[in-house]
Amino acid sequence: MREDQIRTILTDLNGGSADIEASALISTDGLIISSALAAGMDEDRISAMVAAMLSLGERTAAELSRGNLEQVMISGTQGHVLIIHAGNDAVLCTIAGKQIKLGLLFIDASRAAKAATAILR
Amino acid sequence: MREDQIRTILTDLNGGSADIEASALISTDGLIISSALAAGMDEDRISAMVAAMLSLGERTAAELSRGNLEQVMISGTQGHVLIIHAGNDAVLCTIAGKQIKLGLLFIDASRAAKAATAILR
Repeated sequence: MREDQIRTILTDLNGGSADIEASALISTDGLIISSALAAGMDEDRISAMVAAMLSLGERTAAELSRGNLEQVMISGTQGHVLIIHAGNDAVLCTIAGKQIKLGLLFIDASRAAKAATAILR
Repeated sequence: MREDQIRTILTDLNGGSADIEASALISTDGLIISSALAAGMDEDRISAMVAAMLSLGERTAAELSRGNLEQVMISGTQGHVLIIHAGNDAVLCTIAGKQIKLGLLFIDASRAAKAATAILR
């Protein structure tokens, strides 16, 4: 089942680092495809913010001649939100704590996005 | 003069890598403080996108419990836009080509943002 395969990708991603708190695969129009979230995290809140950020990210990339949007990262004092395209129709959103090494986050999330893209195809 | 000092920070940042195409210091409400842009780049377009991205980035960081916004990076097929807080009242926006090493971009831009913060203080 594709649902199970995607869910496994997300739980594997979360399990790969103690600093990854949550991940979700979301359609580019902001609907949850699958998610692996900590208790107290709200799917709808995440998908709404991701949809808004994708829309503005695409416009920013276009306006500032950066080509087609590939990813957006928002970093705060308490951690990071990384949104990576998984094919044309979906994005992977990964929510991580402050201590994570960004290089590791980029590699793990990119791999997961690629795996999810293959399943959605 | 503070204007000259800030302008020097930006031109030094751009000069540090062939892949950094432009940089600008912008108030958090979207007004240009200083910029060092390639020909054909539009200050107003950059400041408008940065102001919009800051506003949404702050909301995203708050909604997803990431604390206070520190930086936003938008990556496309043609390169990156990195927005880093320079104190509470300004942000540094750096526009780079696809070939840049992200580690170098983060280090150089963070240093420049810190230097600009000290001058604005």
